[in-house]
Amino acid sequence: MSNKSVDAMTPQELAEACAHELYRRDNATRQAGMTLEAVEPGKSVVRMTVRDDMVQGHKTCHGGYMFALADSAFAFACNTYNEPTVAIGCTIDYVAPALLGDVLTATATERSRSGRTGNYDVDIHNQEGRLIAMFHGKSYKVRGQILEHAQASKQENSND
Amino acid sequence: MSNKSVDAMTPQELAEACAHELYRRDNATRQAGMTLEAVEPGKSVVRMTVRDDMVQGHKTCHGGYMFALADSAFAFACNTYNEPTVAIGCTIDYVAPALLGDVLTATATERSRSGRTGNYDVDIHNQEGRLIAMFHGKSYKVRGQILEHAQASKQENSND
Amino acid sequence: MSNKSVDAMTPQELAEACAHELYRRDNATRQAGMTLEAVEPGKSVVRMTVRDDMVQGHKTCHGGYMFALADSAFAFACNTYNEPTVAIGCTIDYVAPALLGDVLTATATERSRSGRTGNYDVDIHNQEGRLIAMFHGKSYKVRGQILEHAQASKQENSND
Amino acid sequence: MSNKSVDAMTPQELAEACAHELYRRDNATRQAGMTLEAVEPGKSVVRMTVRDDMVQGHKTCHGGYMFALADSAFAFACNTYNEPTVAIGCTIDYVAPALLGDVLTATATERSRSGRTGNYDVDIHNQEGRLIAMFHGKSYKVRGQILEHAQASKQENSND
Repeated sequence: MSNKSVDAMTPQELAEACAHELYRRDNATRQAGMTLEAVEPGKSVVRMTVRDDMVQGHKTCHGGYMFALADSAFAFACNTYNEPTVAIGCTIDYVAPALLGDVLTATATERSRSGRTGNYDVDIHNQEGRLIAMFHGKSYKVRGQILEHAQASKQENSND
Repeated sequence: MSNKSVDAMTPQELAEACAHELYRRDNATRQAGMTLEAVEPGKSVVRMTVRDDMVQGHKTCHGGYMFALADSAFAFACNTYNEPTVAIGCTIDYVAPALLGDVLTATATERSRSGRTGNYDVDIHNQEGRLIAMFHGKSYKVRGQILEHAQASKQENSND
Repeated sequence: MSNKSVDAMTPQELAEACAHELYRRDNATRQAGMTLEAVEPGKSVVRMTVRDDMVQGHKTCHGGYMFALADSAFAFACNTYNEPTVAIGCTIDYVAPALLGDVLTATATERSRSGRTGNYDVDIHNQEGRLIAMFHGKSYKVRGQILEHAQASKQENSND
Repeated sequence: MSNKSVDAMTPQELAEACAHELYRRDNATRQAGMTLEAVEPGKSVVRMTVRDDMVQGHKTCHGGYMFALADSAFAFACNTYNEPTVAIGCTIDYVAPALLGDVLTATATERSRSGRTGNYDVDIHNQEGRLIAMFHGKSYKVRGQILEHAQASKQENSND
């Protein structure tokens, strides 16, 4: 990742720096084995393989893990502007079951962003390209900056 | 748990037998440390402590785990009639953050049930009784029975 | 309605003054024949009879009119503090059909309110007390005051 | 409209015949001045001009009428297969206000359809192409046929 100051970054560099910082801090996303495949301003792609600890009866993925995957993709997409946002409400609609071993890809797209709120759609497909679930998230901008602390700690490190 | 046949159970016994059978099969719910505190026809109470692997930045619980808790309570509540149901759509609204170590209690209540579909509300409160999130789940009845296989395997075991 | 200044009103007087001002301005609600039955801080009850111009095939009420009824009850409930709020997202779940001539009562209840956003539940029942639909609305506080203009115009009138 | 029997229709002819039959029966949609601009299997486009009886304070369109527009587009799209379906749950997210005189276009797209349920997205844009609201509807197939009665009555008429 770039050592550029935040102000000197292009929108794409800023989106990547924010996403990587969020990923670093986010135990839940990392421990579920999710990988950040791509990010750009207002967009992200996150992947997760359905593990044994994620299934319920009939070896189908627990809805909570499908939701968590979509929710993480949503979080990466709406936090690409160095303005921290939180989810205030989400919906998920299940279309087809995800099974043990399936590789699920969540693609998040910004639909709107104005004032403090934004709307994001996330589609989850399996490894065969079949639509598994559709998610919608509403974001709310809170105070502060995502990279502030990260940049500060990098500067400290660069003094070593 | 009772060795009664399904037909001889009261609605309350049936609700408990179904919930315990689902819990037994459900890796995801057990591995998240959720405990089933109470169940009755159309209702359930499920508890979860926010662990280190469930938090994201700022030590707040990942939305996916709050969703998973509510989703499990919903599943126990809508599967109390020995008719297997699945979620077809859910919404969650976040009211206040849940923090590392918080003990979250999800209370699921049936709002309607007719034909193949049902509607359930789930409220999540923390250990101080503060409302953390509100969840709504829509259920859809599929074929089969929940306890069929379980009863069969018990009979096999009793032959040992 | 009271001629008291806004500052001198009790919360209940303020809730009533806001609701009546909103009702006065709201062509859509009035022309659908909705009546405001009760209001208090964070709560409202609104009633509507299903008319011939609200039905679709099979003489059932168009979902849009059931939504409009719930949405109006939501608006009255979240605008009881003299702080103008708008809806940013709503959900509705249909439980039973409403028929031509049915008298529908929507009861709105505040579930949370903090910062700029709030969450409100609205249940619609028919004249027999049967649950017809469940609505959830998320509010967002915008700038200004509800009664500001109203009070100004009253003062002008009182100069006559 | 075609005098063909239902069995002889192409999917496109069937979609058009179903939509026109629904439109004919639907007082609420017609009286709101909505026009059906296009229909094909799983899709529809519906248009509505914001009238004086649809606005609330500040001359903005009441959320109920935006919902009704989206809901009608959803109904036309999910009823294109001669299998009657009803809405069981819907969500709407408001992005920008619609004003008195605005011409709103709702475009409904099928996202999934299997078993008895389906999922449809509807976007509402204004005359300048700006996104105004996003709607999601879940459909449920009920018994019967849409064109059955219509065809029967046509046959009766053709005997005159």
